[in-house]
Amino acid sequence: MSVIDLNSDLGESFGAWRMGLDEEVMPHITSANVACGWHAGDAGVMNQSVQSARQRGVGVGAHPGYPDLLGFGRRQLGCSPQEVHDYIAYQVGALGAFCRIHGVRLAHVKPHGRLYLDCLAKEDLCRAAAEAVAAYGPELIYVTLAGPGGDLASRLAREAGLKVAREAFPDRAYTPDGVIVSIVEGGAIHDPREVAERAVRVAAEQKLVAIDGTVIDLDAHTLCVHGDTPLAVDFARDIRGELARNGVEVAPMTSFVR
Amino acid sequence: MSVIDLNSDLGESFGAWRMGLDEEVMPHITSANVACGWHAGDAGVMNQSVQSARQRGVGVGAHPGYPDLLGFGRRQLGCSPQEVHDYIAYQVGALGAFCRIHGVRLAHVKPHGRLYLDCLAKEDLCRAAAEAVAAYGPELIYVTLAGPGGDLASRLAREAGLKVAREAFPDRAYTPDGVIVSIVEGGAIHDPREVAERAVRVAAEQKLVAIDGTVIDLDAHTLCVHGDTPLAVDFARDIRGELARNGVEVAPMTSFVR
Amino acid sequence: MSVIDLNSDLGESFGAWRMGLDEEVMPHITSANVACGWHAGDAGVMNQSVQSARQRGVGVGAHPGYPDLLGFGRRQLGCSPQEVHDYIAYQVGALGAFCRIHGVRLAHVKPHGRLYLDCLAKEDLCRAAAEAVAAYGPELIYVTLAGPGGDLASRLAREAGLKVAREAFPDRAYTPDGVIVSIVEGGAIHDPREVAERAVRVAAEQKLVAIDGTVIDLDAHTLCVHGDTPLAVDFARDIRGELARNGVEVAPMTSFVR
Amino acid sequence: MSVIDLNSDLGESFGAWRMGLDEEVMPHITSANVACGWHAGDAGVMNQSVQSARQRGVGVGAHPGYPDLLGFGRRQLGCSPQEVHDYIAYQVGALGAFCRIHGVRLAHVKPHGRLYLDCLAKEDLCRAAAEAVAAYGPELIYVTLAGPGGDLASRLAREAGLKVAREAFPDRAYTPDGVIVSIVEGGAIHDPREVAERAVRVAAEQKLVAIDGTVIDLDAHTLCVHGDTPLAVDFARDIRGELARNGVEVAPMTSFVR
Repeated sequence: MSVIDLNSDLGESFGAWRMGLDEEVMPHITSANVACGWHAGDAGVMNQSVQSARQRGVGVGAHPGYPDLLGFGRRQLGCSPQEVHDYIAYQVGALGAFCRIHGVRLAHVKPHGRLYLDCLAKEDLCRAAAEAVAAYGPELIYVTLAGPGGDLASRLAREAGLKVAREAFPDRAYTPDGVIVSIVEGGAIHDPREVAERAVRVAAEQKLVAIDGTVIDLDAHTLCVHGDTPLAVDFARDIRGELARNGVEVAPMTSFVR
Repeated sequence: MSVIDLNSDLGESFGAWRMGLDEEVMPHITSANVACGWHAGDAGVMNQSVQSARQRGVGVGAHPGYPDLLGFGRRQLGCSPQEVHDYIAYQVGALGAFCRIHGVRLAHVKPHGRLYLDCLAKEDLCRAAAEAVAAYGPELIYVTLAGPGGDLASRLAREAGLKVAREAFPDRAYTPDGVIVSIVEGGAIHDPREVAERAVRVAAEQKLVAIDGTVIDLDAHTLCVHGDTPLAVDFARDIRGELARNGVEVAPMTSFVR
Repeated sequence: MSVIDLNSDLGESFGAWRMGLDEEVMPHITSANVACGWHAGDAGVMNQSVQSARQRGVGVGAHPGYPDLLGFGRRQLGCSPQEVHDYIAYQVGALGAFCRIHGVRLAHVKPHGRLYLDCLAKEDLCRAAAEAVAAYGPELIYVTLAGPGGDLASRLAREAGLKVAREAFPDRAYTPDGVIVSIVEGGAIHDPREVAERAVRVAAEQKLVAIDGTVIDLDAHTLCVHGDTPLAVDFARDIRGELARNGVEVAPMTSFVR
Repeated sequence: MSVIDLNSDLGESFGAWRMGLDEEVMPHITSANVACGWHAGDAGVMNQSVQSARQRGVGVGAHPGYPDLLGFGRRQLGCSPQEVHDYIAYQVGALGAFCRIHGVRLAHVKPHGRLYLDCLAKEDLCRAAAEAVAAYGPELIYVTLAGPGGDLASRLAREAGLKVAREAFPDRAYTPDGVIVSIVEGGAIHDPREVAERAVRVAAEQKLVAIDGTVIDLDAHTLCVHGDTPLAVDFARDIRGELARNGVEVAPMTSFVR
């Protein structure tokens, strides 16, 4: 029987600013990537996010980003590998504190935004990231991209001693080479039925239909879903329902990622 | 035989700005209070500070402060107990990450600056602080003031399940009531011999001569020394030497604080 | 004939976080208090806010706050008068740059949140604030509270050479002494008709019915309205409409505050 | 008779952290580039820097940088032209406030660190920077690099309507193509006599001896000197003295840059 995890970026509110329908999307996911206060989130939001995830049995991961609150961690920042190492260690440790306080096991680390992208392409930065995570917790899962784009990061994370969970995006078009099509080039898939069907096929068969109709292999352990709008929450709920109807078990990545 | 710890605030550099003669004072102390990035310090400085302390056998503690880099954590900030709880948990966890990475036991937590003072006087804030520390690590030592000014904080920290180390300031004058005289009122003692003698008397006899000549009891486990100037480093070295000459053992607080 | 200004706090989005229905409330107001990046707002939001206000003929003012993004400038921060002076000068100058770029006259300064409150009660801080504003632009209007709570600030602002606009809150209950009743004590008025009627009475007669039925004098030049929710925008629109129906002119404060 | 300006980056202290010997270098320079709080400096430091410059007759310029306090504005940050425009406007305006308060004319703008470099190479960013400066003050001088490396920025600044001052670095080696040799490749010149002689030749003849002995043309209006160490201050003093001995007038750039 197939099994897959559903992850979502949460805890992105900051101070007086609200972002994301965390409580609404939480019932539909199995892993929460919690922002750690550098690109989004703050200590109070982190505390509440971990508490809420624990109450719902959702796995907790750290979602560290570049120190760029103004740019939401989406902008290139010219960091050295040592800086990336230290920044990730700091943020993972900060989230880890709330896990200890709530008696929750920190399950995974998924870099955010531009740091996530840089860790796909820049070997020195990714190695620094993976080593920081492994030094903090060798039992942790490193979450990165399914498909060829995530091969380098997956290899480096495994070399650092980490387990790896690879994620797919059911609401995004892929090229025949397994690369995600950008939003501005029409890469977003808006039909909820189609998104849910794609999610099932990835989960059950590790296959995805590319933008030209080619069926490609996609080795995903987790599907990334969003909670930033009511529509996104609907998508998440539909995906979860469709997975259940098709006999795909949905479970936290810690239960099956080796 | 008497035993005492020598603690110092370290790791207060930030980015391109240097502060403190950390490497110079480190040989003379047994416990380092490492700033956690909110009032001073940054992830890189924290990493280096923990590494340096480990190499020298100096105990490592977290030195969390208010989120006020511009004011160095010295200004009043109107925080709720929940905020204080979350801010301390975050910072202790962040420092804890570097301890894990370097295989060092996090030994203690000493709030910084205005947060330290607020935790002496405001029961709800101190309780929140102590509970955050205890929830993170019930084996941790909470460092607060020796003398009556630290009684409330000591009691609350013990109620939260923590061990307590009380600190004295050998280079500061005390009133007969055990209150530290402010610098602007002439509270600083500048004679290195006098400072060293005061340190010995506190360590060996738990006594201190107050500003009016009265001999008062001061139940200190640790002496706070400074490393911000070459002169301060000399003071620290002199204190350490004088303690040794008088048969007072100088050891990390974890070795004797119960 | 009576005349009154309608002011609203705008430009409080920050980076990726949206706050406030600025474009919706803008048509109903005559003065915008634009956040300056320290408690809310950022350079991009400031630029857009000034541009939008210019296009609609809304007067532009600076809304400087304490350097506490995490606390939205609502928390006490123990600043010296010199710090308040420098913080206000910096923020007013920053907003002034966007006014120059868009060919808009900077009309007024209204401190935000806790800084607003501190300037009501602490003479040294208010004097520092007023002097910073006057040194930057002696033609500027200082906005503070109508009623006895704003008497000190009004006097100090005038002594610094500034014009003063005093603001009332039509959606808040007042005590017979002219003090605003806090929200937690039931101080919010929720009936749109009542709010609009109160606005008219303040504008036309400089009178307000206190919470015990007493009719009090309230010397307001401007009414503060909100744009944080669709309901708040409705309130603003209703107030504007009711003022028009009652023959009260609504105009930017610069046109009549002397 | 020849004339040249001497500029230095000042006001780079932040909060409790000191950086630079501002008071020591100030007597030797004619233009101060004052940090604006985003990569270094704070409102209090800015106020004092402008006041000090005014007292000594030193011209005041803004030294805006990327919003990266942790990286001192030296790191690449992936900003859009609009962001660069808004960031520069904000910072120039903030410094401009202290100029107004002290009755000083804001003379020039020199981007800092990585922003300075990006404005040499990226046309869209430099245009955005120049347009922000020109919109704020069309009479302002834009300071950029002498030699071919500064040609693009100079052209764009002039197109935006600004005057341009080009700066040379007498303590740095140049290639025959007029490019500065990096420090790690041995580009620093340590002999004070040589540095002073190079300064004179640039000022008097607009010539410089490149690293291979070639004599190149260098069209500099201002020489950048440093004040970060006692040795750097000595260099600045020596340069000033040598210029005087060689009949080169040293004057603020506003007095001769057209």
